[in-house]
Amino acid sequence: MSSADLKAQKRQKFEHVFTVIRDELIAHHIGEGMPKEASEWYKQSLEYNVPGGKLNRGLSVVDTVEIFKGRALTDDEYLKAAILGWCVELLQAFFLVSDDIMDSSVTRRGQPCWYRNEKVGLIAINDAFILESAIYYLLKKHFRQETYYVDLLELFHDTAYQTEFGQLIDLITAPEDVVDLSKFSLERHRLIVVYKTAFYSFYLPVALAMRVCGVPNTPTNDPYALASSILIPLGTYFQIQDDFLDFSAPPEILGKIGTDIVDNKCSWCINVALASALPAQRAVLDANYGKKNPEAEAKVKEVFEQVGIREKYAVYEEGAYKEIISLIETIPEGGSKEGLKREVFKSFLDKIYKRQK
Amino acid sequence: MSSADLKAQKRQKFEHVFTVIRDELIAHHIGEGMPKEASEWYKQSLEYNVPGGKLNRGLSVVDTVEIFKGRALTDDEYLKAAILGWCVELLQAFFLVSDDIMDSSVTRRGQPCWYRNEKVGLIAINDAFILESAIYYLLKKHFRQETYYVDLLELFHDTAYQTEFGQLIDLITAPEDVVDLSKFSLERHRLIVVYKTAFYSFYLPVALAMRVCGVPNTPTNDPYALASSILIPLGTYFQIQDDFLDFSAPPEILGKIGTDIVDNKCSWCINVALASALPAQRAVLDANYGKKNPEAEAKVKEVFEQVGIREKYAVYEEGAYKEIISLIETIPEGGSKEGLKREVFKSFLDKIYKRQK
Ligand SMILES: [Mg+2]
Ligand SMILES: [Mg+2]
Ligand SMILES: [Mg+2]
Ligand SMILES: [Mg+2]
Ligand SMILES: [Mg+2]
Ligand SMILES: [Mg+2]
Repeated sequence: MSSADLKAQKRQKFEHVFTVIRDELIAHHIGEGMPKEASEWYKQSLEYNVPGGKLNRGLSVVDTVEIFKGRALTDDEYLKAAILGWCVELLQAFFLVSDDIMDSSVTRRGQPCWYRNEKVGLIAINDAFILESAIYYLLKKHFRQETYYVDLLELFHDTAYQTEFGQLIDLITAPEDVVDLSKFSLERHRLIVVYKTAFYSFYLPVALAMRVCGVPNTPTNDPYALASSILIPLGTYFQIQDDFLDFSAPPEILGKIGTDIVDNKCSWCINVALASALPAQRAVLDANYGKKNPEAEAKVKEVFEQVGIREKYAVYEEGAYKEIISLIETIPEGGSKEGLKREVFKSFLDKIYKRQK
Repeated sequence: MSSADLKAQKRQKFEHVFTVIRDELIAHHIGEGMPKEASEWYKQSLEYNVPGGKLNRGLSVVDTVEIFKGRALTDDEYLKAAILGWCVELLQAFFLVSDDIMDSSVTRRGQPCWYRNEKVGLIAINDAFILESAIYYLLKKHFRQETYYVDLLELFHDTAYQTEFGQLIDLITAPEDVVDLSKFSLERHRLIVVYKTAFYSFYLPVALAMRVCGVPNTPTNDPYALASSILIPLGTYFQIQDDFLDFSAPPEILGKIGTDIVDNKCSWCINVALASALPAQRAVLDANYGKKNPEAEAKVKEVFEQVGIREKYAVYEEGAYKEIISLIETIPEGGSKEGLKREVFKSFLDKIYKRQK
């Protein structure tokens, strides 16, 4: 089987588990005596908002459990890992549904944002809450008997809180309607990226996999902190790539048209440009960033080119790659005594390094 | 000391604990390296949204623990009960901040709704998330070592999910902009009230107090189910009162002007009227309910009077009171062997019965 076929098969197997958890959630909702129209609403919200993305975060729980175990998973092991993967996707759906409202976004994953559907509107806020609460329903149903149940709960609590902290700084640094580049900086950018993206997208899936595999932690020996010390830089690198590709990748390869400049995003590109812009270039950025017209966007892109952003990115990427490799190599080659393996982190890095989309 | 003074003193003592948890939450936020403006934002959101209400829910955790213990609490016992009380108030703040956005409300507790503040807007959605997450931060900080920690987590998870179910039926039954009385019924009203209000306002505070006092539950002997079987009818009675007072109480006594009719609320009053309206009365209700003008509101009130709503309410109240008393009396007079006491429920009922505001 080709690697693309294998990947499609993996995805299909994972997607099947979505139908299992969806049916469990809806059966419980009906069992609570909710009216039929409410249960149908909930089902639509789940189907519209949860399974349509790339599923990288959810799949990476399963992948990581497989690497830890070093063998094919039993059916029960697979189901448990996949349910945790879908819980990460539910958390993401909770954040995306609400982020789209706060950002006044129009489309998401090639369809109108949930709240843009005529009958939905701001009911989407409560739908987002339900998507988050569904996580805890599923954890209780499937993991209550496990010794690591409370660790799973805390991982989701802590990560949600961190992500909300990241959202808050993002929202007050780069509001949708007021452009003020004096609030931007590479330091602020890093903080937003770490809190808003890296914890839930990189640390959470791996930490969940470690818990399900029984990796212990003690005050003197904390493999979770070690994993975090690698995954947060990895997640930061991933987001900086994402920012750079939004500017540089051809839309036909990226699969979408970059809108970070027009949307006043606190992106890596604008922060690099601000850090080295001459006064005249800075004036161009101030006058044109976050404006809703193509001419303004073109002027910003010109300044990006003038400051040599492509070369700066190439330098950044090499440095980030080397830094992450050296972090991974702090784990002994045959694996650490707690069971951490280089391969977990290496497989993430390989998927990301020099990606074009 | 007079009973009013005692009550004020109790409230003050409880309010002091708010400053403790606020400072803990902000110290942690700053410790995470968040920018000063973000920490100030968070602090403002806490102060604006959490402590300004009647605090009935939060105080009832403390009151219930006192009744269970049957003696004055130690400082540590008081602090623990009060923190749980504030967690209930945080949950309520999470729901109110977002409910006001979904309902396009203007004021809350005598001030503009949080999202109506100029600089806030839809950032309030993320602020609401943070208020909810703060609960789990506080529970982890103060209760992690307790055997009942996981029970507290599940109580908050379950109750939030139930409340969100209630919000969903409320939102699709009585949308803010489309009036359709054919969706209303007393049965639907009951379901909304139980899920949207009774679980978090009545069951949650008592169940938290029971957990902190170490009341156990087993599959064959579940005092939590018994408590719920009394508190859900009690919460339903409370909300029906609330609905009736919104229509009937003089604003100078109620402390606010009732707006349920104008706001298209699925209130007990409209459902009682619908249940016994003649075709001509029904036509008046269909034409005037949920309309934003005083003439329409007056016509609806006239139909309420015509169907004899005051007498129907008096009959309902007597029946509800007797039903709840008989439920309370299923607990043995000296207390049940699990430690449930009639007084817990009786004190709730006494506060509510025949209240005028
Ligand atoms: Mg967005
Ligand atoms: Mg956003
Ligand atoms: Mg992007
Ligand atoms: Mg409301
Ligand atoms: Mg509402
Ligand atoms: Mg009311």
